[in-house]
Amino acid sequence: MEEMPLVLPESKEKICKSLVQETPCFCYFEEDILKNLEKLKSFEAPFGLTVRYAMKTNSNLALLQLFDSNGFHIDASSVFECYRAMAANIRAEKILLTSQDSPSKEELQDLVEKGVLFNATSLFQLEEFGKCFPKHKISVRFNVGIGSGWTKATSTGGLSSSFGIYAQIDKIQSLLRKYELCLERIHIHIGSGSDPEKQKLVAGKAIELLSIFQDVKIVNLGGGFKVARMKDEKSVDISEISKGSAKLFREFHEKTGRKIHLEIEPGTASIANEGYIISKIKDIVSTGKEGFTFVKLDTGMTENARIPMYGAQHPLYHIPIGHEKENPYPYVVVGPCCESGDILSCERGNSEEIATRTLWEAEIGDLVVVGGAGSYCSSMACANYNSRPRAAEFLVRKTGELVLIRRRQKLEDIYKDDIKI
Amino acid sequence: MEEMPLVLPESKEKICKSLVQETPCFCYFEEDILKNLEKLKSFEAPFGLTVRYAMKTNSNLALLQLFDSNGFHIDASSVFECYRAMAANIRAEKILLTSQDSPSKEELQDLVEKGVLFNATSLFQLEEFGKCFPKHKISVRFNVGIGSGWTKATSTGGLSSSFGIYAQIDKIQSLLRKYELCLERIHIHIGSGSDPEKQKLVAGKAIELLSIFQDVKIVNLGGGFKVARMKDEKSVDISEISKGSAKLFREFHEKTGRKIHLEIEPGTASIANEGYIISKIKDIVSTGKEGFTFVKLDTGMTENARIPMYGAQHPLYHIPIGHEKENPYPYVVVGPCCESGDILSCERGNSEEIATRTLWEAEIGDLVVVGGAGSYCSSMACANYNSRPRAAEFLVRKTGELVLIRRRQKLEDIYKDDIKI
Repeated sequence: MEEMPLVLPESKEKICKSLVQETPCFCYFEEDILKNLEKLKSFEAPFGLTVRYAMKTNSNLALLQLFDSNGFHIDASSVFECYRAMAANIRAEKILLTSQDSPSKEELQDLVEKGVLFNATSLFQLEEFGKCFPKHKISVRFNVGIGSGWTKATSTGGLSSSFGIYAQIDKIQSLLRKYELCLERIHIHIGSGSDPEKQKLVAGKAIELLSIFQDVKIVNLGGGFKVARMKDEKSVDISEISKGSAKLFREFHEKTGRKIHLEIEPGTASIANEGYIISKIKDIVSTGKEGFTFVKLDTGMTENARIPMYGAQHPLYHIPIGHEKENPYPYVVVGPCCESGDILSCERGNSEEIATRTLWEAEIGDLVVVGGAGSYCSSMACANYNSRPRAAEFLVRKTGELVLIRRRQKLEDIYKDDIKI
Repeated sequence: MEEMPLVLPESKEKICKSLVQETPCFCYFEEDILKNLEKLKSFEAPFGLTVRYAMKTNSNLALLQLFDSNGFHIDASSVFECYRAMAANIRAEKILLTSQDSPSKEELQDLVEKGVLFNATSLFQLEEFGKCFPKHKISVRFNVGIGSGWTKATSTGGLSSSFGIYAQIDKIQSLLRKYELCLERIHIHIGSGSDPEKQKLVAGKAIELLSIFQDVKIVNLGGGFKVARMKDEKSVDISEISKGSAKLFREFHEKTGRKIHLEIEPGTASIANEGYIISKIKDIVSTGKEGFTFVKLDTGMTENARIPMYGAQHPLYHIPIGHEKENPYPYVVVGPCCESGDILSCERGNSEEIATRTLWEAEIGDLVVVGGAGSYCSSMACANYNSRPRAAEFLVRKTGELVLIRRRQKLEDIYKDDIKI
């Protein structure tokens, strides 16, 4: 069967067409986001759930406000993200900071005094916190490995990861005692929670830790819930995946009387498929019958680094402008930068190998819409490469109103911090 | 033999130490850049040479000024780069625009009227130029493939590339006639000029084209001159690599009387090894005897996306602060972002696999300096991921003076274009 071009729902296509003068730009859909948030809240937690939005996913202030007003708290990955969240009027108490980059004493003091919650990801961070805030409540991120007992170096998952404290329970205990800290929350993000069995295993590790650390009231299971961007991929069922862990925490309660509050930190699962990049075909070139036909877009690695970095696959929707949808044809789809890696149609997991996507017969001026672009696109892009300004961002409100939530960057803002000699 | 840590020259180490409060930051060395520029000017061109700096490599205004004042012209990859170069007071006539992203009519008109030279990279761009500027001089980028006759679809190099016009000589000729354009320059950048034999082959293709296009006075051979960042890599010898092509252009002159002016467009070769990222160790964690010891830096993919994107290898120099250089030890070196791909020590060409680098026994607060960071780091980074501000940039003048050439981005500038709802 011949592959056919992907098709956007008519209502979305209409909105994309209305943005034809704004390309490249992002567009997010509030109604879809809200539906998605409801799904995430269905994570089964017998004794309460807090959902934290992993804001590194997409840090637009308007989107942060949207998550906040719908009951999400914040997972911040840097001190900078804490301040940005507060700039979106999010209360400090709703922000949990989990950072690879250890905050300075001054940063730690300022943030914690404002109310930000701190999750120590290393013994050093735990001690620094203890020095600044003895007798306070604290949270610790554990690296529990996966596949075997995490207190012995027999697991593979954990050994190659720098995230969280690996084993060293005695050292944690000693620091807690030294600074009279109360370990209130344990944090276990394993990077992928797609497999219900793994999720259950993680919950099992958490329960091992709970029996060691008697003050803990909250277990944060992290995020990493897989989302299908392409039709041959599979999303996890959030309520399904949580059943195993819910059972374990119920049993733990029956045995110990302790009611553990759960937290999850979805990023991709919050917004990946609810965002699009709208771009224009700026050129079409061919290397002949034995070669390829290339469409060149005004979007690429400057809005989406996931493709060149991870060989990620994103759906591409073609919207012809001024002509009909006819004659499906395989195109190599590339970005605007002078970089051979700036490609939108590569092999899965291998950005070095070009692949084709079936579009309708394409003309310069047509739109190509990149799906699955709500997460790790705007926030992680190689923005400003080739001195290209950051793209504008739009939000379609649930009322249908289209609002600008990020202005296109002014060219001169790219180099305003440069100082001539 | 045990691997030993890399060592920076003492003078450079001293400068890095003086920037300990500024990490992460870039530092470039004018004296080294100037020596390098002399080497590039040694490209043998019997009838004249223009060296164009591929400004996408590193577009800091101060560096653009430095290249300009040392006789370099500009290779711009986008209309934005043209304006940025002009913001560095570079005369429009010295800028050649070669863009994947076709300029709009308005952009083309504005830039060409200002004096910018335009290099058409597709039949569409050639026609657009013809419409705006009939009877003008024009430049065309060709995709000549490599390995066999480029006018037949038998070469492999060219078939997978969207850069330049592949074959279609008759169509080019017809557009030149239609708009009475004078093809003054041909542009042939093959992506890699590391092999003297390939460089000669490219020159051979250029000469085939010269016999078809009789008005051509300039051949632009592009850049892509390989530079060794690591000691097991090999830099090309610029004067050596050009000998073969020089011979061909001399012979062509003898046969036809035509004196062809050459252009090259070095990017990496201009500045890769003359720039460094100075960073601080912010944490050290371990996954035990069977695992790894990780040093966590305050630099990573936010200043250098080459490593996660291409598995590129950069030298890492460790400068202990407040303790001695002793006890070499293998560390996994990672960046500050909450992203497992944010790594500085990966396997060559495979950013998914972690590797170790030998440093001295490390302590939190020590410096780690990333070498080979002059090119495609500041300009192509995933800046602002995790809401991290763009790093400051410094230039050590040939007088020894250390000057700030880019201020660290203000946090609020990252989200100043966001519009709250």
